[in-house]
Amino acid sequence: MSKQSRRREALLYHAKPKPGKIEVVPTKKYATQRDLSLAYSPGVADPCLEIAKNVDNVYKYTAKGNLVAVISNGTAVLGLGNIGPEASKPVMEGKGLLFKIFADIDVFDIEVGTEDVDAFIETVKNIAPTFGGINLEDIKAPEAFEIERRLKEELDIPVMHDDQHGTAIISAAALLNALEIAKKKIDKVKIVISGAGAAAVSCTRLYKAFGAKDANIVMIDSKGVIRKDRDNLTDEKAEFATARKIDTLEEAMEKADVFVGLSIANIVTPKMLKSMAKRPIVFAMANPDPEIEYDLACKTRDDIIMATGRSDHPNQVNNVLGFPFIFRGALDVRATKINEAMKMAAVEALAALAKEPVPEQVNIAYGETKLIFGREYIIPKPFDPRLISTVPPAVAKAAMESGVATEPIKDW
Amino acid sequence: MSKQSRRREALLYHAKPKPGKIEVVPTKKYATQRDLSLAYSPGVADPCLEIAKNVDNVYKYTAKGNLVAVISNGTAVLGLGNIGPEASKPVMEGKGLLFKIFADIDVFDIEVGTEDVDAFIETVKNIAPTFGGINLEDIKAPEAFEIERRLKEELDIPVMHDDQHGTAIISAAALLNALEIAKKKIDKVKIVISGAGAAAVSCTRLYKAFGAKDANIVMIDSKGVIRKDRDNLTDEKAEFATARKIDTLEEAMEKADVFVGLSIANIVTPKMLKSMAKRPIVFAMANPDPEIEYDLACKTRDDIIMATGRSDHPNQVNNVLGFPFIFRGALDVRATKINEAMKMAAVEALAALAKEPVPEQVNIAYGETKLIFGREYIIPKPFDPRLISTVPPAVAKAAMESGVATEPIKDW
Repeated sequence: MSKQSRRREALLYHAKPKPGKIEVVPTKKYATQRDLSLAYSPGVADPCLEIAKNVDNVYKYTAKGNLVAVISNGTAVLGLGNIGPEASKPVMEGKGLLFKIFADIDVFDIEVGTEDVDAFIETVKNIAPTFGGINLEDIKAPEAFEIERRLKEELDIPVMHDDQHGTAIISAAALLNALEIAKKKIDKVKIVISGAGAAAVSCTRLYKAFGAKDANIVMIDSKGVIRKDRDNLTDEKAEFATARKIDTLEEAMEKADVFVGLSIANIVTPKMLKSMAKRPIVFAMANPDPEIEYDLACKTRDDIIMATGRSDHPNQVNNVLGFPFIFRGALDVRATKINEAMKMAAVEALAALAKEPVPEQVNIAYGETKLIFGREYIIPKPFDPRLISTVPPAVAKAAMESGVATEPIKDW
Repeated sequence: MSKQSRRREALLYHAKPKPGKIEVVPTKKYATQRDLSLAYSPGVADPCLEIAKNVDNVYKYTAKGNLVAVISNGTAVLGLGNIGPEASKPVMEGKGLLFKIFADIDVFDIEVGTEDVDAFIETVKNIAPTFGGINLEDIKAPEAFEIERRLKEELDIPVMHDDQHGTAIISAAALLNALEIAKKKIDKVKIVISGAGAAAVSCTRLYKAFGAKDANIVMIDSKGVIRKDRDNLTDEKAEFATARKIDTLEEAMEKADVFVGLSIANIVTPKMLKSMAKRPIVFAMANPDPEIEYDLACKTRDDIIMATGRSDHPNQVNNVLGFPFIFRGALDVRATKINEAMKMAAVEALAALAKEPVPEQVNIAYGETKLIFGREYIIPKPFDPRLISTVPPAVAKAAMESGVATEPIKDW
């Protein structure tokens, strides 16, 4: 399909038969005056009084416990940059739609008209009584770090900035499996991270939580390799600055085992790829065009294990494998946080699922003869129906074991 | 039904099969990976870019134009007082449900965790890009006045505090018809307003817009008649203070033509009722128990025209006759405000509809042999299907004629 015809189709999809992608509907009877006397005055006073007596009853009598806010100020939307709150709304509605169809979570998308960090935080805190969880989305770095950190500290419901942690979780699952296939150990591999934004920082932290070593990591931003001797490093960049005396991506790629791209299209050349170690792992996740084209990369190195952000190649690192199921697990046990243990449990559950035999319906949905664990299938597919029955229980269990769950685990 | 069994039923209605009364669902296809590539990345970038080019396109490609926020901080919920944001949530969800079933308007209920006026206003302003309109709800006076006034000034979408204007609009329609039946003129009748809260102030202002005279109005609060010579009057109370040298409700009721109660149960005695003028109009709207019981009032004065807030008596002044249709009309022409002209148009449309022959289905729904315009039927019933085809067009037309509409009127 041409770009132009895809554009027409996307605009039509959003505009007709009515604008947007979501609506809010009743879940209870409303046909008669008697129904309405329960839904509204006078019957509604009874649940109000129960909640006034004990605020926890809000989870029993309202939609709060299954309701997540997808919140953005539109400052870093997709690869489009700072396009403002209104222009971010199609993405936020779309995110809500994914929450609903993959994990039956209801979402109010909230577009916030301020770029001021304090004002943003106050606004989210003030509307938080409405929600069971907060998914921050498409907020630019470095503001996003402070916003997430402070909201996590100050609210008693789960808060996650998906741009940071979503990609980290899915790519970590892919990395664990790629390393297994490449027969390499995470604490030994040399890792190049291209990009130093919110997602890159979060990916690197999570890989370290699984054993990657600081001394083996080189992070690169638009100015080149982030070295310890560079002036004016932000806290996040200082955390990953290297002691090595190199400057360029080309130097960093030499003998590297893993390349993680969260940067821009086509910055990796075939020459760089050839300089990497045996069985290189290349996650070229720039959107919509990866750091090196899939076909070019595979042609250059036949021992490569490659993932991208695209659905038209194998191994799509797609956040939808993470956020619906992570929030589902957190909401199911009414966790007060989404902590490291819960994210790591999601990674392990995703990695393990990819190694299980694939149900026939998944093969059919993706038009594959047969998906088999290996270099072209290192992470599950989004439409795999086993995701909802494996990832949320793993996340919920981790919440309980790490002491942030407030409800007993449900019987799945 | 006993209070206890109604309570059990109301709690069950809210809790099962799942908590709360609303969910958020997709309105577009989502079965295949291809559908999702339109709903989300990469297709979603196209509507985002169209909106970034021209912010008005947000009405074309997102749910904003049909989305109203029902916002409360829980400081004046029903007759329950300041029960907090969480405890107000069942009411706000219920209000959303009424918006949806009566006017197909989608609602996000937002419970705000602050009582500070400035913080509340900033929060609503910051999340306003999300919405096509703002319905403020159950916020205590006098804060509600400033909150509504400033939000109306500072936002370019319709803002209405329904507790103020809803009751005013419905009761004004009832008043116009009651006066017609009683053969009295609005500029001649003596009016007693019992209560000086948000709704009472708004009612009185709207009756004045229809011709009621200051000199004929007496307003009474918990301290008695609000006289011009009382110290420390708020602006709102000063607006309606009387020059008459009387102090009590009993004195005010003597020879009064109209009693409007927005206060507390059982403060009007048969003796007071007997002292009123011929064919007295009594709107005893305190909830759940009126200022005088319906049966007692009718027994005391057989020439009375009476309305209450209750569904078990004739002439229920029910806000649901107003807000869904007023917002529907405002949204349909993308009005930037809900102004006086639009409210008055709603009043006139409601009053006129009550004088039309009632469709058989409405008689059946309400178990009446036949509803006929007269003292027991002065305002339409909520389930009247003609409301949606008469009130919104009248409101939209008034928006256009008063210059606050930004879209041409739709073809109803």
